[in-house]
Amino acid sequence: MMIVCHTVDELRNKIKQVCKAGASIGLVPTMGALHEGHAALIKAAVENNDFVVVTIFVNPTQFGPTEDLDSYPRTLDADLSLAKQLGASLVFAPSAQAMYPSEEMTWVEVTGNLTKVLCGSSRPTHFRGVATIVSKLFNLVKPTRAYFGQKDAQQVQVLKRMVKDLFFDVELVIMPIIREADGLAKSSRNAYLSKEERQAALVLGRSLEKAQEQFKQGERKAKAFIDFVSGEIAKERLAKIDYVAVYQLPDLKQPSAIINGQSLLAVAVYFGQTRLIDNCILEER
Amino acid sequence: MMIVCHTVDELRNKIKQVCKAGASIGLVPTMGALHEGHAALIKAAVENNDFVVVTIFVNPTQFGPTEDLDSYPRTLDADLSLAKQLGASLVFAPSAQAMYPSEEMTWVEVTGNLTKVLCGSSRPTHFRGVATIVSKLFNLVKPTRAYFGQKDAQQVQVLKRMVKDLFFDVELVIMPIIREADGLAKSSRNAYLSKEERQAALVLGRSLEKAQEQFKQGERKAKAFIDFVSGEIAKERLAKIDYVAVYQLPDLKQPSAIINGQSLLAVAVYFGQTRLIDNCILEER
Repeated sequence: MMIVCHTVDELRNKIKQVCKAGASIGLVPTMGALHEGHAALIKAAVENNDFVVVTIFVNPTQFGPTEDLDSYPRTLDADLSLAKQLGASLVFAPSAQAMYPSEEMTWVEVTGNLTKVLCGSSRPTHFRGVATIVSKLFNLVKPTRAYFGQKDAQQVQVLKRMVKDLFFDVELVIMPIIREADGLAKSSRNAYLSKEERQAALVLGRSLEKAQEQFKQGERKAKAFIDFVSGEIAKERLAKIDYVAVYQLPDLKQPSAIINGQSLLAVAVYFGQTRLIDNCILEER
Repeated sequence: MMIVCHTVDELRNKIKQVCKAGASIGLVPTMGALHEGHAALIKAAVENNDFVVVTIFVNPTQFGPTEDLDSYPRTLDADLSLAKQLGASLVFAPSAQAMYPSEEMTWVEVTGNLTKVLCGSSRPTHFRGVATIVSKLFNLVKPTRAYFGQKDAQQVQVLKRMVKDLFFDVELVIMPIIREADGLAKSSRNAYLSKEERQAALVLGRSLEKAQEQFKQGERKAKAFIDFVSGEIAKERLAKIDYVAVYQLPDLKQPSAIINGQSLLAVAVYFGQTRLIDNCILEER
């Protein structure tokens, strides 16, 4: 029997019981419109924890004023079925009012380059919204482990820093990007794409895969990767680049001209009104 | 036997054991230079919790660039003796590096009027520093109850909002102001006062007490309290007023001309270089 909670009090009461029983808790925070990427997170959580909480909340504070908060896909019934089928113990689907109980905000914000580069440049308040809602969920759910996808590579780095700096007692588990058969990274926003845009968007996964190939064959110049991937994307008439960039991991430090250690090659590209992100890690194995 | 920890790892290991044993934890966060005000917090914590953690940390992020971070009194040996004598289970006295492990900060910030009025006006980053360090201590110590003094009346309101907004699972226990025999509110900063300044500073407690008397006798005009207390303080040659103000509780909302419900009458006044605060609550009983 999967429990569904819509209020903070219901959730807190249940978590209290679970903690008292000494059970380990896995948390999978989502904005719903669940796809196989989310499914992989839930499966991993179910495998390694006694009690798994999936949260479904389209968090308004991580959307900018001109972004797609209103049109973001909402598919609660299908999400509940999937979570249940995958073995989740509890789904928490609160209202915005429940998660933001005061008129004025209390923010959690990771500052510095880490939240200014890549998506932070075009979405300056996005990661503040993410850090704030994830902090709230950590305090409510008290997870032993929390699951996030590598698809949101910058979010992963921001949350790792937040957990370290604020001493949250939680293990972050980062799961690999899940792709469609044709290589498109799974995203709730893929639902926005026209047939032509979806076809054009394949350039992202394809060019990142080729870049990794070039890395394996010895390429180490950061600029070579940026030029190659930018060039491939530019060939697509329907694509409009937000960024193609290389940063060092962890913490997204500026790379040297010749990359070494673990680096992130990340892209954000518009296809029509739809902004997609994708990335790969460049590292010697 | 009282435990003394200087590192985050030592503290975490101990708290893990305490949690496993199902013990309740009381937290008393301090900046050291412990006086009878702190002693009252520690006593209350010892009375009501199985395990009491006193933290001693002069938190740099709550001091402004021109404030007294360097000269703030540091009396660790005496503090440890007092904490032990009062029955504290553990003192956590970390380094700044331990509490702020990254070059760039992760902030917790309560926004809005609540942190802009009173001390927030002359100390614009103070409450961000307070909210951030208290969040870190909550995550490390996992307290059942946390103890703060009503002397820092605005801090109390800020932390109540933070706990509510971020869903910290902790009960805030607020203890009354402790005063010297002559009415001066206990403060680590009283140590800065010359004999003449200390004598002059008695005007704060004295005028607040008279204001409460006037409230009891039926005065309800916010301006009357402000005028009276400002006038009394202005008579002291060594006093320089930062603010004398009335706000509604909770959340420090603007008062109406005729106050009703619970209100805070708060003052901040310089005596030489030393800035003292004091306050009283005006409410019908």
